[in-house]
Amino acid sequence: MMILKKKIQSAIHSAKTTLIAGIDPDYEKIPQSLKSRFSNKTECVEAFCKAIIEKLSPVVCGFKFNLAFFEVLGPNAFDVLKNVLDAVPDNKLIIADAKRGDIGNTAKKYAEAFFDRLHCDFITVNPLMGFETIEPFLGDARKGVFCLTLTSNPGADDFLLKSTQNGETLAVSIAAGLNKMQRKTDTVIGMVTGATKTERLHPVLAAYPEAPLLIPGLGAQGGDISKLIKALEFHKGVAFPVISRAIIYASDGEDWQQKANEKAIAFKNELSPLYKA
Amino acid sequence: MMILKKKIQSAIHSAKTTLIAGIDPDYEKIPQSLKSRFSNKTECVEAFCKAIIEKLSPVVCGFKFNLAFFEVLGPNAFDVLKNVLDAVPDNKLIIADAKRGDIGNTAKKYAEAFFDRLHCDFITVNPLMGFETIEPFLGDARKGVFCLTLTSNPGADDFLLKSTQNGETLAVSIAAGLNKMQRKTDTVIGMVTGATKTERLHPVLAAYPEAPLLIPGLGAQGGDISKLIKALEFHKGVAFPVISRAIIYASDGEDWQQKANEKAIAFKNELSPLYKA
Repeated sequence: MMILKKKIQSAIHSAKTTLIAGIDPDYEKIPQSLKSRFSNKTECVEAFCKAIIEKLSPVVCGFKFNLAFFEVLGPNAFDVLKNVLDAVPDNKLIIADAKRGDIGNTAKKYAEAFFDRLHCDFITVNPLMGFETIEPFLGDARKGVFCLTLTSNPGADDFLLKSTQNGETLAVSIAAGLNKMQRKTDTVIGMVTGATKTERLHPVLAAYPEAPLLIPGLGAQGGDISKLIKALEFHKGVAFPVISRAIIYASDGEDWQQKANEKAIAFKNELSPLYKA
Repeated sequence: MMILKKKIQSAIHSAKTTLIAGIDPDYEKIPQSLKSRFSNKTECVEAFCKAIIEKLSPVVCGFKFNLAFFEVLGPNAFDVLKNVLDAVPDNKLIIADAKRGDIGNTAKKYAEAFFDRLHCDFITVNPLMGFETIEPFLGDARKGVFCLTLTSNPGADDFLLKSTQNGETLAVSIAAGLNKMQRKTDTVIGMVTGATKTERLHPVLAAYPEAPLLIPGLGAQGGDISKLIKALEFHKGVAFPVISRAIIYASDGEDWQQKANEKAIAFKNELSPLYKA
């Protein structure tokens, strides 16, 4: 297997974009024309994901899988997830949006679950319990983490944007800590930085200027693309914007696959300044 | 289904303890005498969990399931988990130690996955992205959350014990916020407070004096039971100590079930001051 830094470059260059499609397969939102072909809900969700992946693969550099939408399927959750992940072409990035965060022993099992069993390239992690909870995910140059740093929801004000006694926000402390960790490992360490707080992004990026960024919050969540592009103008790391619902549920008619593809192309074009060839 | 407050009372009184057994089914640690009866790893893990649950049920008031140890099983992860949960007697508390934390849409799916599909009583949640991420878990009096507040690992110093500008730690802000939330909902809102930081517990408990507490970190993690009992002397909420490895892997000989039972009884006795009849 390739080291992740090379896979990232190759994925970006072959698709000519850093756009990531977010796969949040909500049965309620799956187009009726597909639903009517399945009596089994779980099979329908799996077919939807596979069809979307096939149609979007030429247009995006990877896929982010939101674990909640698989776990809600019950006993088949990880079986469906595995089948869907197996349908992703080899040259696309796979990000497990699992936001796991726990102590050594347990974190090690999460790393094994997502890296070794499900063959994901990246997992999103939650650093609340401390930097030590990220370490069990490190050590393999073929893998990476995106660590929650500054999220795009209003609740980010509760903790991530709270100032600590040295005057910097928690988000900035996280960024600075990740920067330090990255210098000691070949595992790729990126940050999740939401798209709707662009005015608060500057000190976070300054604390880790080479960070790969995973940027949700565009599309359905209302982040402004031109503001985001401006905010990232001088950032040295690669920035992966993620668009989920606005692409995969672009139409609920019979043309849903085609419309998803067109919508992804439109976003790809709009986001092209983030693709630095 | 009973409201959770009643189920808690009944679970505690029938077992005469607040002790929770932590189920972290690590294949490597399963006794050889059981392993040799299975060619399939996943089936062995399932059998181990069911046997442990059967043997411990008379001695504990509930079980905490560490999701990582199920997810690492791969495609069958949630299938095994469901089968194991189905083996828990009705009058025992079921806590999904999943530490989920995400925004509304996604958190709603996690709530559905653990409460509605897997019939857990409690889920552990991670508040990093803000209090709004806890709200999707609220609304049902038959369910509850335990929110990470002050964990027992050294990394708690990185963020949870960092002081914010008003001089209180993040852990205290979390506790105060949860206290406010509890006043507006019938869903039980508890805190995860580790057993190894008893000297830091006081301001956290003061910020939420009636909080139900889930207390990992005893046993294998080295928390001191007598210090813990002292620290909780005046706390008004119920305290659930969790012991995992020290009970379920009490012996790797043929007597593993018997030894697990004996070890649980020993901890139950030692922890009896937390059971206020």
